[in-house]
Amino acid sequence: MNAGKAKNNPSSKIVILDVAEDLFAVRGYRETTIADIAKQANMSAANLYRHFENKEDIAAACAHRCMERKNKALREVLDRKRLSAAERLEEFIVSLLRYTYEETQNRPKMNEMVEVVICCRPEMVHLMMSNLQSMIAEILAQGNAQKEFAVENVVAMAETVFASIVVFYTPLFMHLHPLPEFEHHARAMAELLLRGLTRR
Amino acid sequence: MNAGKAKNNPSSKIVILDVAEDLFAVRGYRETTIADIAKQANMSAANLYRHFENKEDIAAACAHRCMERKNKALREVLDRKRLSAAERLEEFIVSLLRYTYEETQNRPKMNEMVEVVICCRPEMVHLMMSNLQSMIAEILAQGNAQKEFAVENVVAMAETVFASIVVFYTPLFMHLHPLPEFEHHARAMAELLLRGLTRR
Repeated sequence: MNAGKAKNNPSSKIVILDVAEDLFAVRGYRETTIADIAKQANMSAANLYRHFENKEDIAAACAHRCMERKNKALREVLDRKRLSAAERLEEFIVSLLRYTYEETQNRPKMNEMVEVVICCRPEMVHLMMSNLQSMIAEILAQGNAQKEFAVENVVAMAETVFASIVVFYTPLFMHLHPLPEFEHHARAMAELLLRGLTRR
Repeated sequence: MNAGKAKNNPSSKIVILDVAEDLFAVRGYRETTIADIAKQANMSAANLYRHFENKEDIAAACAHRCMERKNKALREVLDRKRLSAAERLEEFIVSLLRYTYEETQNRPKMNEMVEVVICCRPEMVHLMMSNLQSMIAEILAQGNAQKEFAVENVVAMAETVFASIVVFYTPLFMHLHPLPEFEHHARAMAELLLRGLTRR
């Protein structure tokens, strides 16, 4: 009966993920054990295993939450004000960079978790990314509708644009430049992409 | 006298790097110790320390060699035949992808070494990347000279183009797609970039 209770208690799942996310991001995925997570979450390892099959499972759920937060933040940026499609695309790229940069600032081991998910659950990465790609597709469709852009296949082009800005949303790369320099690169990228997207 | 000999013997340095590169790429950077490398290279750890200060140093030297090989392979691609600047840029992107993809096929732990270098020696990454960026700058300058492209600042644009194709040369991402699908994405990227680079 206790097992059933634990399984149906969403808050204990959230506690596990909160704890695991902090441990993974600061101490590192590899250095964190299931026992560490259970201890910090004030529960037995047996109780924890009622919610998750293994550490990889917990990492996948954490990564999913991180992506949902990122999607939500970007959705707010996109909905904020009336902008041309070109302005919206530039703002989207810069916001994605800023969000990723800030997120990794106090989370030095963040990329270990990202790496585990990329290697072991690529299908999950594809799924999670599709949300950001849809936002780009939305911007491209707006640009087409307003005769700013001339994009034939909005979905395929959104995929290409998304791939071209991978350096701005991958935690691993956040070590490469200070933020202002990175922002400069992001704006230059937006300009190049916009030259390719706009009508001639 | 032995120490001096060892230090001046380039071949023992090469042996260390050959051994270390294999161990890092297959067993992994973290799982490989200095003692493992020395043993496999048939030398004492003390002898190895005459050439390298620590494991990070060896990883940096290995990464440097990998990049030199990649640069050489791409240089050959670029010099191979007479192409328009547009064709050359597309071939450059696809070759970079193929090289990275093949290199990571039998080297599952390759990205551990890459990660160490990105995190601990970002200045080395910048230096190593500059060679590839110069090749792109060369293509852009060719395109300008032949009136195919209209690029104002060749060096800055080469940096932006190079950043836009990061997904095609980072070992970590090679898990995401099978090669033919990846190649399709690379060609779509080349097309988008070329739309941005060509004269109107």
